[in-house]
Amino acid sequence: MSLTIHKKLRGKIEIKPKIKISKANLHLLYTPGVGKVAKEIAKDITKTFDYTAKGNNVCILTDGSRTIGVGDSFPEASLPVMEGKAMLAKTLGDVDAWPLCLNTKDQDEIIRTIEILTPNFSLFNIEDIRAPKCFYIFEELEKRNINVFFDDRQGVGIVILAGLLNGLKLVNKKIKDIRICLVGAGVAGYGIFEILNYLEVRNIIVLDKDGIIHKGRKQSDGYLKNIIQNSNPENITGGLKEAIKKSDVFIGLSGVGNLLKAEEIKLMNKKPIIFALSNPVPEIFPQEIEKSVKDYIFASGRSDFVNQVNNILVFPGVFRGLLQTGKKMSLKMEVEIARKISSLVRHPRKNKIVPDPFDKNLVKEIVKTIKNFKNK
Amino acid sequence: MSLTIHKKLRGKIEIKPKIKISKANLHLLYTPGVGKVAKEIAKDITKTFDYTAKGNNVCILTDGSRTIGVGDSFPEASLPVMEGKAMLAKTLGDVDAWPLCLNTKDQDEIIRTIEILTPNFSLFNIEDIRAPKCFYIFEELEKRNINVFFDDRQGVGIVILAGLLNGLKLVNKKIKDIRICLVGAGVAGYGIFEILNYLEVRNIIVLDKDGIIHKGRKQSDGYLKNIIQNSNPENITGGLKEAIKKSDVFIGLSGVGNLLKAEEIKLMNKKPIIFALSNPVPEIFPQEIEKSVKDYIFASGRSDFVNQVNNILVFPGVFRGLLQTGKKMSLKMEVEIARKISSLVRHPRKNKIVPDPFDKNLVKEIVKTIKNFKNK
Repeated sequence: MSLTIHKKLRGKIEIKPKIKISKANLHLLYTPGVGKVAKEIAKDITKTFDYTAKGNNVCILTDGSRTIGVGDSFPEASLPVMEGKAMLAKTLGDVDAWPLCLNTKDQDEIIRTIEILTPNFSLFNIEDIRAPKCFYIFEELEKRNINVFFDDRQGVGIVILAGLLNGLKLVNKKIKDIRICLVGAGVAGYGIFEILNYLEVRNIIVLDKDGIIHKGRKQSDGYLKNIIQNSNPENITGGLKEAIKKSDVFIGLSGVGNLLKAEEIKLMNKKPIIFALSNPVPEIFPQEIEKSVKDYIFASGRSDFVNQVNNILVFPGVFRGLLQTGKKMSLKMEVEIARKISSLVRHPRKNKIVPDPFDKNLVKEIVKTIKNFKNK
Repeated sequence: MSLTIHKKLRGKIEIKPKIKISKANLHLLYTPGVGKVAKEIAKDITKTFDYTAKGNNVCILTDGSRTIGVGDSFPEASLPVMEGKAMLAKTLGDVDAWPLCLNTKDQDEIIRTIEILTPNFSLFNIEDIRAPKCFYIFEELEKRNINVFFDDRQGVGIVILAGLLNGLKLVNKKIKDIRICLVGAGVAGYGIFEILNYLEVRNIIVLDKDGIIHKGRKQSDGYLKNIIQNSNPENITGGLKEAIKKSDVFIGLSGVGNLLKAEEIKLMNKKPIIFALSNPVPEIFPQEIEKSVKDYIFASGRSDFVNQVNNILVFPGVFRGLLQTGKKMSLKMEVEIARKISSLVRHPRKNKIVPDPFDKNLVKEIVKTIKNFKNK
């Protein structure tokens, strides 16, 4: 089905003129009239925003090193995902998002390419680039004062926090009291870690392919050092069983379908909240959870289960808001957006902890949050 | 007027989804379904053309070094022109053309950027880049087997030849018998020179800012060497008066408005054909010509005079044809396209030597010509 629809469309987006061109307006929209517009911009570069699409243009950019379903592959393999994202950005956020899949995996070349592309775009969304190079790219772009949103990291952090806040209300627990088991310390895992850390949630046990991240682990990457310093206060070691024991919340970004069994769920505290985010097969399905516990909250990345937590809830509004205000994302802004998204679910229920991605208020409220945001 | 309409539009193109996205198709067009599409492409890169927009995507790319009205400026100043071209490519050729204005003037960096951008695009149109670096970029892209169309050079060559062929019919002269005075040896001038040279028109006098190009001139650039070798058989030297004397055709790309006076027209052979292509002010206006001669043919780049010769007549069809066939442009193909465009004017008249850019047959016939083209 998915292949059929893609084959029929041959691309999910197209470039459309905003106005019907005719003999009558050709001289205004193209030569010679366009020369006057070029002159105005050459005199004052800020006029680019008045006379061109730049102010509404976001570049969604990847090197194809972490493509859904395939991992590190040709950049072309990322095109369907990037086009999908561009389509959503327009439909939900009225943003012109241009997907570009770069034919280089070199971090410095990616940064340089982005610098070279700045005349067309007001915002860059880096996407599906492997850790740790994506962190390096992000930092370097910030240093160069290029406005960048890192959806895999920041968008995921926002949406998980939004769902978590509602989940905690339902189970009547406070965020600072809980223990979280976070499986996966890649881009998304780190995005979740850092937003929780910003909220001073310290009792997080992070597990990656080498086991629980603890003080004894040697790490050179800055982001892993940050996890080591600010998580696992009891310095627990071991694997999944040790990590999940006595946790209130499980957040799975393992990439491993059916990683969890009912016996592990049994080790969790009462009323567990389970984000099983691996896609398409989550770490656990509700029927397996129910073998151990009836009172729980389940969320996944799938549209065919309750509580689909997906960055679709975040990026259209964030693109729109950042473009309109020229502001830059920060952890403080992330938290405010997450709280706003959370509050859009008037009456949270076990099967309704996040809003619908087609909720008309979603983009509007995120944009308003960004507009009102004050960095202190 | 031009500024007003641009300010109102804030960009002449936008990205549009080809399908309405909804809850019902989201899982097919985006995650998780899109993962299957990514897998198919990762297995077989040629599937990119089945499942994405790549097959219809042209990149219109510039470094802003030769922008209309301003010359060498910020790349942003080229955006209005590039957006205009993208708009025309869609309206007339149903091609998705993405304008990119690069923030680098370095030729090797431009080439490398294009290589990095190949996953998204099937064709690159380099545009408004200064000579000689544009020639170097073009050659290097061809060496790398990247399909490239150089509209300023090839498109102009095609459209001028198309107009010239009809003009010659009207004045009853043969192309091999005529003398041509070509003012301007930049990109467009060279594009015209090489297509005429391919047709073995040798009696061309090329004039640039240093006077008539002749055998005594020292030149290191390959393209100027080509002009020296294959033009000016009598090795004439001097300036405009010497160059235009006894010519049958004047082609002006001087960038100098009102360069020609009636007295120079008087020096030309009978029934002169005058292409006064500088924009917005041509080298001469018809009223000045008429002080010397009544029987003449005039063409310019302006839409408010007869015989507007503009690459609009060429690039939408060429984009479409090259995308559909995967063929590469060559001088032989240029000539065939020019002949076809010329033939679309059923009954050439003094004030009708080229078709209307909105002529429905234009794109169709150019595409057909490219489809039927055999490289010998």
